[in-house]
Amino acid sequence: MTMTQMQAARAGKITDEMKIVAQEEKMDINVLKERVANGTIAICANINHKNLHPYGVGEGLCTKVNANIGTSSAFPDPEPEIEKLNIAIAAGAHSVMDLSTGNNIDASRHAILEHSTVMVGTVPIYQATVTAIKERGAVVKMTEDDLLHTIEKQAKDGADFMTIHCGVTMDVINRMRAEGRYMDVVSRGGSFITGWMLYNEKNNPLYERYDDILDICAKYDVTMSLGDGLRPGCLADATDHAQIQELLNLGGLVKRAWDRGVQVMVEGPGHVPFDQIATNMKLQKSLCHNAPFYVLGPLVTDVAPGYDHITAAIGGTMAAVNGADFLCYVTPAEHLALPNNQDVKDGVIVTRIAAHAADIVKGVPGAREWDLNMAKARKQLDWEAQMKLAIDPQTAREKRASRNPEGTTACSMCGDYCAVEIVNKYLGATIEHC
Amino acid sequence: MTMTQMQAARAGKITDEMKIVAQEEKMDINVLKERVANGTIAICANINHKNLHPYGVGEGLCTKVNANIGTSSAFPDPEPEIEKLNIAIAAGAHSVMDLSTGNNIDASRHAILEHSTVMVGTVPIYQATVTAIKERGAVVKMTEDDLLHTIEKQAKDGADFMTIHCGVTMDVINRMRAEGRYMDVVSRGGSFITGWMLYNEKNNPLYERYDDILDICAKYDVTMSLGDGLRPGCLADATDHAQIQELLNLGGLVKRAWDRGVQVMVEGPGHVPFDQIATNMKLQKSLCHNAPFYVLGPLVTDVAPGYDHITAAIGGTMAAVNGADFLCYVTPAEHLALPNNQDVKDGVIVTRIAAHAADIVKGVPGAREWDLNMAKARKQLDWEAQMKLAIDPQTAREKRASRNPEGTTACSMCGDYCAVEIVNKYLGATIEHC
Repeated sequence: MTMTQMQAARAGKITDEMKIVAQEEKMDINVLKERVANGTIAICANINHKNLHPYGVGEGLCTKVNANIGTSSAFPDPEPEIEKLNIAIAAGAHSVMDLSTGNNIDASRHAILEHSTVMVGTVPIYQATVTAIKERGAVVKMTEDDLLHTIEKQAKDGADFMTIHCGVTMDVINRMRAEGRYMDVVSRGGSFITGWMLYNEKNNPLYERYDDILDICAKYDVTMSLGDGLRPGCLADATDHAQIQELLNLGGLVKRAWDRGVQVMVEGPGHVPFDQIATNMKLQKSLCHNAPFYVLGPLVTDVAPGYDHITAAIGGTMAAVNGADFLCYVTPAEHLALPNNQDVKDGVIVTRIAAHAADIVKGVPGAREWDLNMAKARKQLDWEAQMKLAIDPQTAREKRASRNPEGTTACSMCGDYCAVEIVNKYLGATIEHC
Repeated sequence: MTMTQMQAARAGKITDEMKIVAQEEKMDINVLKERVANGTIAICANINHKNLHPYGVGEGLCTKVNANIGTSSAFPDPEPEIEKLNIAIAAGAHSVMDLSTGNNIDASRHAILEHSTVMVGTVPIYQATVTAIKERGAVVKMTEDDLLHTIEKQAKDGADFMTIHCGVTMDVINRMRAEGRYMDVVSRGGSFITGWMLYNEKNNPLYERYDDILDICAKYDVTMSLGDGLRPGCLADATDHAQIQELLNLGGLVKRAWDRGVQVMVEGPGHVPFDQIATNMKLQKSLCHNAPFYVLGPLVTDVAPGYDHITAAIGGTMAAVNGADFLCYVTPAEHLALPNNQDVKDGVIVTRIAAHAADIVKGVPGAREWDLNMAKARKQLDWEAQMKLAIDPQTAREKRASRNPEGTTACSMCGDYCAVEIVNKYLGATIEHC
């Protein structure tokens, strides 16, 4: 009988995964164990994901970064997605999500799980939907068992966490309709479930069968990632009745998962004005009993397609500073197309910048030291050290090399008039005179 | 006898520039006039900058964006800088600063002023320094009159605002040395002045001759932009004794400028941890009597060379939400090289994103409506409207066109499984049934 990380922690057992996380994050192992037992830290490590390097998500740990990859009906080939997986890992992602909706979803997932040393998340309803359309003619013809079978299959394959939209209940949809909304439902999983519920006039099977799903999660130690199906898709919908009604549901579902010994994270918005982000983070932490918070963005404006990795990094920094534990990247292709390799790299690096800017504030061990070492390298005009310390050494090197003669101490912006050189000369000299 | 905008406002006169600003920003003309009179809004419009479209900077107005351009000793040709000027204006900058330190600084400035319809700022000490090195052999051999003559020359040419580092006094330098600092002085102007003061054992001539400088500013209505010569160059130096000591000086200099009828802005940091940004903005507003605040970044981490347009956009949003009125762009080339054309465009767009995200929070007229119109276009899957509303339509169009067959309603990320299409179908249908 396997135990989840949470069950092990509650039994006083220190797992190998806990040891690695505690060592890498410089956290006392007993503090970590306590937090895993209480659920404020999740270690997403499916017992069947054999080559996984374990990471923890939550209280006191560094902010984690996820990259979404996977095929789509327009780009169904799995090969390029493995390339993106490798790019995401090389750029420093702690996790990828396989969002495949192409022809052969099983094959994509197997390939990604086989190659991934980082956490792998899935969204089972995507595969269930694609299968229902193929085999039954429409998303609304999907059966409850279709859904459960897909969850079990993906769990058995080794998915470390799963986005499951259990909180989209009929009362949430009714509240959305009563209060009105500009963009209605923009989450894909949320839209499938909403369509299904409205057509079938039945409540959400992911909610009704929650205990069965928890049994599957417990069996393989899949971390439940409670999806926010009603997340706001534009600033004007942020922090509205539908979103908060669903969040109340999610808070209740967190407790039920913990009661079953299942690890759980909660997913969050979306598109949110900058001044509402802190409130959203604090509300989630309060209503969801300090469960780890996994956020997409938030995007702080709707008007920047092509630059949404940046609108998300702005919101993501604010979110992580105020309690978000895990940032899902957004790429420059968001709202426009499936990301390509460059988009994946840009998305990961920019999200790591947001995570790191927040980790400095959170006091995560090592975060401030990294910046201080860069400052010292700059003061010494030690370019090699600067390049090595850069969050993306390749890009920094290329940009410098492209526009500076080799061996110069300054850069081509200041040229002969480098502030650091001048001050080192005169301030250094004066200090010697003292 | 010409009047500055401030003198005119105080005399109850409504200038043409005030009319344009009030109309474009949807601000009551008398409110605007009052704020110009009080100094909380500056309209940077040199009487000799003939083709200028006037902009206001400050209380209740949209957050402005500046692009730094200009030659360097490594790239002394003025032609490419005019190209950058045009790129910056096309991308939506409200202002450029000519930071030229190349061979022929007069020629660069004349060309930029001639072509620029947006505000032009300069940093006279750059030219004074380059001239001193050429004519006298070292920056420390510069005379006070060299400095004053350069200021007068650039004012007469039409510079709308000037960065002048009047606040770097000997007590500020002494405080820096007593308290210690990792990066000392990273502002170029600050470093020239510091080197000069230490070598000559004299106080800052820009401080000592402040009244003479104000006379020049009053004559041409140059807005004084009080430079922060001791701005922190790394997170570890942020909000330290040297920075705040200089800020105290700047607050005193603001009042002296206003007493003389000279418009004034104050420049701010720099490299600042995310959680210290709000404090910095509020401290400046309090110590500088609500004078408009013009900030560089702030950069929220030191470790991202190649991505500093993004570290600055994160900090810039937080800064503008908390009171900054004017954001100086940072480009991807920061800390590495002189920016090229693409860097200039990226820098302006990303800084406009930060400014706009803040303007939504500030309640600037029209800001929220822009986002709402985008939300409506997305809901209707109206791609042409989405492209037109994008902050950078060209980039959005290119990204979409590169990876989507023409005429598709969805995008290649979701393909056949578009959330918006599904919800429009089922939620729309159900609402009709009601």
